[in-house]
Amino acid sequence: MSVNSISFENIEITGGFWKKRQDMVRKTTAKAVYDRFSDTGRFDAFKFDWKEGMPNRPHIFWDSDVAKWIEGVAYLCQKKREPRFERIVDRVADLIEKNQLEDGYFNIYYILFAKDSRFTVRDNHELYCAGHLMEAAVAYYRATGKRKLLDAMTRYADYIEKRFKTDRDTGFTTPGHEEIELALVKLYKETGEKRYLELSRFFVDERGKRAENKPDWMDASYNQSHLPVRQQFTAEGHSVRAGYLYCAMADLAHLTDDEELKNACKAIFDDITLKKMYITGGVGSSSHGEAFTVPYDLPNMVAYNETCAAIALALFARRMMLIETDSKYADTVERIIYNGFLSSVSLDGRSFFYENPTEIVKYFDSRDKSVAGRAVNVPPMQRSEVFDCSCCPPNIVRFIPSIGDFMYTTGTSEDGRQVVFVHQFMDSRAEIDSGGKKLRVVQKTRYPENGKVRITVEGADVTLAVRVPWWSDAKYETEKGYAYFDVADGGSVELDFGMKIKVVEARREVVFDAGRCAVMRGPVVYCLEGCDNPKPLRGIVLKGGRNFKYFAEGPLKGVPCIRAAALVRPEQPENAPLYSERKGGYEETVATLIPYYAFANRGADDMQVFTYVK
Amino acid sequence: MSVNSISFENIEITGGFWKKRQDMVRKTTAKAVYDRFSDTGRFDAFKFDWKEGMPNRPHIFWDSDVAKWIEGVAYLCQKKREPRFERIVDRVADLIEKNQLEDGYFNIYYILFAKDSRFTVRDNHELYCAGHLMEAAVAYYRATGKRKLLDAMTRYADYIEKRFKTDRDTGFTTPGHEEIELALVKLYKETGEKRYLELSRFFVDERGKRAENKPDWMDASYNQSHLPVRQQFTAEGHSVRAGYLYCAMADLAHLTDDEELKNACKAIFDDITLKKMYITGGVGSSSHGEAFTVPYDLPNMVAYNETCAAIALALFARRMMLIETDSKYADTVERIIYNGFLSSVSLDGRSFFYENPTEIVKYFDSRDKSVAGRAVNVPPMQRSEVFDCSCCPPNIVRFIPSIGDFMYTTGTSEDGRQVVFVHQFMDSRAEIDSGGKKLRVVQKTRYPENGKVRITVEGADVTLAVRVPWWSDAKYETEKGYAYFDVADGGSVELDFGMKIKVVEARREVVFDAGRCAVMRGPVVYCLEGCDNPKPLRGIVLKGGRNFKYFAEGPLKGVPCIRAAALVRPEQPENAPLYSERKGGYEETVATLIPYYAFANRGADDMQVFTYVK
Repeated sequence: MSVNSISFENIEITGGFWKKRQDMVRKTTAKAVYDRFSDTGRFDAFKFDWKEGMPNRPHIFWDSDVAKWIEGVAYLCQKKREPRFERIVDRVADLIEKNQLEDGYFNIYYILFAKDSRFTVRDNHELYCAGHLMEAAVAYYRATGKRKLLDAMTRYADYIEKRFKTDRDTGFTTPGHEEIELALVKLYKETGEKRYLELSRFFVDERGKRAENKPDWMDASYNQSHLPVRQQFTAEGHSVRAGYLYCAMADLAHLTDDEELKNACKAIFDDITLKKMYITGGVGSSSHGEAFTVPYDLPNMVAYNETCAAIALALFARRMMLIETDSKYADTVERIIYNGFLSSVSLDGRSFFYENPTEIVKYFDSRDKSVAGRAVNVPPMQRSEVFDCSCCPPNIVRFIPSIGDFMYTTGTSEDGRQVVFVHQFMDSRAEIDSGGKKLRVVQKTRYPENGKVRITVEGADVTLAVRVPWWSDAKYETEKGYAYFDVADGGSVELDFGMKIKVVEARREVVFDAGRCAVMRGPVVYCLEGCDNPKPLRGIVLKGGRNFKYFAEGPLKGVPCIRAAALVRPEQPENAPLYSERKGGYEETVATLIPYYAFANRGADDMQVFTYVK
Repeated sequence: MSVNSISFENIEITGGFWKKRQDMVRKTTAKAVYDRFSDTGRFDAFKFDWKEGMPNRPHIFWDSDVAKWIEGVAYLCQKKREPRFERIVDRVADLIEKNQLEDGYFNIYYILFAKDSRFTVRDNHELYCAGHLMEAAVAYYRATGKRKLLDAMTRYADYIEKRFKTDRDTGFTTPGHEEIELALVKLYKETGEKRYLELSRFFVDERGKRAENKPDWMDASYNQSHLPVRQQFTAEGHSVRAGYLYCAMADLAHLTDDEELKNACKAIFDDITLKKMYITGGVGSSSHGEAFTVPYDLPNMVAYNETCAAIALALFARRMMLIETDSKYADTVERIIYNGFLSSVSLDGRSFFYENPTEIVKYFDSRDKSVAGRAVNVPPMQRSEVFDCSCCPPNIVRFIPSIGDFMYTTGTSEDGRQVVFVHQFMDSRAEIDSGGKKLRVVQKTRYPENGKVRITVEGADVTLAVRVPWWSDAKYETEKGYAYFDVADGGSVELDFGMKIKVVEARREVVFDAGRCAVMRGPVVYCLEGCDNPKPLRGIVLKGGRNFKYFAEGPLKGVPCIRAAALVRPEQPENAPLYSERKGGYEETVATLIPYYAFANRGADDMQVFTYVK
């Protein structure tokens, strides 16, 4: 069955969990990120008036920071115009038009400082910035009808095509940081200009075919250039670069029905989700290269799990839904959006994690007292408003407003019946174009507060293919994870996936989780935080079984919690021996678990996802 | 009761565990270390003919490497002369005499390269090298009667006294790397020259009284200069420097009956052994500064535990036995010698660990594939024959031949009765000077193969005060850990401490051991090694209770093992989910544990001391 995506543009989130987050981005986060980017000169950089001695020297990837922010506010404008943001974007568009070079080239850093070295250093993010600007241009045009940015970016795309594909006079063949490949697909879809699709395919297919210049510290796999992409079956290297490449591979595989590429994508997706993904959906376990490592290497305290990598994996999974009907893709999206992605933003929407570790032992980062520096660096324990490398905050600004993207796909069954795949559950209203007719699909749900979803269809008889989440005990008959319901025009189906609290373990190969379990309720992974529990957290043994109780609100306003009967070893006097024969004699306590996404909203403290369970 | 030490010089190890190790050092290790030191130019450096362009440029601490080796072979010669080694030492002594400066100064690096900068950079190990040469000189003189080295070193000590204490014209006040303080005490004891004791006291007492020049990376606590030593009550900074300082503090406290210093030593010893020591006796948990960190910070995989630090702690504990009668000191010695010290040398006596970690997850050091370097450095998994910084191997060469030092102390009770404290159990014969009479104390034992010890006394009626090890269930009446037996001349006492296999846990504050236990039999800590067991080792759950069985020999020749009924999770197909609801269904297996000291003798593999126990 050929399956099509449904854009968030066709969906309104009307209530519940995600409405709250979308409102937060509109009211708080978009402005907060703008303010910090403004403070740090990222917007002023577009004026091209930076001079030596001034603060905030423009950096090679600043274009992309602002681009992602523009894309995010465009998604907000798609639902409700925002003049306060549009004024800013229009100004940036003017400046880009004004400062873009005659030939179409645009990059603040290079135009200011290294005009003659354009496209010579592969790792310098020019094409990455270009890609994000293209995505922003398409989004802003679609939301507002304003095409100045789009026109500038098609000019730039034409120039890139000329240099890389036609003249081939650049210092490298393919981007050092992938992103433009998927952006060119978007540009193609918006403009209908097939050349952009071909340029994307060029970049994807040329990758790894020959050795490209690289610094010594970098293995070719760091930016996925160790093999032609069709021979890549495992996720390697920098996890954000990888994720964006895999998105483009999946786009091209789908659009050109390329079996070889599809197989590479399927293998890579399985390699990630079966061997290299945290229970939170976080990926890229090593801070060293922000990279994928080896199978089952998922240490908790030093987990890197860059926010952008989680986003990239969700975007990849969304594309895979068009290639193969299997709930593992939407299950992965769900895992990410409720956990390892959502942890990246504070509950007040103002501060952000770049890394998302799955355990914090607070003292460990300051154990080295007698010498400057650290034996082991652990991720920051508190969110920040902005980073030097601030790719993650604007990625959040574009991700949450467009989260509807992940909800539906549609297709036509062999007997000609329209099938609507329901991947995610959000209180919402969708208008889907169905053979010229408008099909309305309405979800009423408080998911993930409970597992009940009522889906109503208006405008046609359809088959609803509803994902039954991997964690659900509900006894629906499923095919590849989807339960099929024929629904007449005006009819509805009501499902209940349940929300039992579950004790989940990792495969035995995951050394660092061995002996410990995570607690989940529905899609939400819970954690222990130091401020709610006796420390050290590893000293807590949850009793398990029926000893969990869910509360719609816990220590954090508006955030649920789980209370769990547990055991801890009693306190000992300071002069008791450090090591002694095991005696038992544990004390009873009640542990409090909060959703992982809500940790670190009350100051830096110990935290763990994997806990001993009796 | 005033207590005196008994030197290994008065003791012959006649059989069993330590005889085997002493024979190994005599037959293999001393020569092996000499060969590697010779290959790397450490001996040739004493010729003072190194020229730019030649290999093996002399290093600032090479004097001390050779000095410790000389001390070691002197201890061998003490029992049985070794012409093959004496020829080498005599040659070094000739070269030292020849190249020592007129004023008495001696240091290869400084004389060759920086004669005018002598005693200007506190961290450059000149006084550390001097100290080790003094220890070597005393040992070699006592063993052979040859005094060339001793005379050279008293000249050097006189010069040091002049510069640091009399003229005070040096660039720093006290040594950056302690060692000379304890060496000067030895020099005093050997020569009777009180000035050396006073110089030691000067270095100890001036320490931390004023800020000294230091590089920015170093906190004053790195070399224990953050406070006057009498105000130091916790172990801080570089663990070897610290340990050697604490030895000198204890020496001075004892010799001068200095209550203030005694109290500092007691507090520091407790801080180490109650809060900063691994179950193996390893100390200095951080590779960063090779340093003590904060209480209960004892991570296993990145444990540093330098061999020299374990040795220094044993030397400190030995000195504390003269200050206070409490079995905690000898218990600590025992913990070190059977575990975290002994692990440092391979079973064949030829290769050495500098770091002694308590867990190895082998893949973890090579997880970072896409970028050069490592996110987390873990200690080497295999012993080496020599290191760039090769302080540990010759420290082993001097430690094992002199291990008898730790066996006895003597005192006279208030009623005038001679008391012999028996701290360690080794098959041996001692001749102790008891008020002019020769007292023979003979131990017959296979300790630690079993817990039986028969101690026979000849030459006088004495009270034997025998340490009852902390791990023993034997029901002797004890005072501060010692059981007292009045033994008539020719009589004997027979003890049995048992050797039950025990499951031992760390205090709850030790985060990284939480939920896991170590297995001990007598003083010996056991570990799981990958080659004997299903991996990952953290996936093994020992059944505990009576499910342990001891074998006098296991997979390693001449090394015991414990077999333990255990559970492991069954293998899963490669495409099974990474995370799933806990199901149980563990499989039965038999785990094999070997003594920690014997790990890594069959190639690099996973290893852990702390294991899940049901």
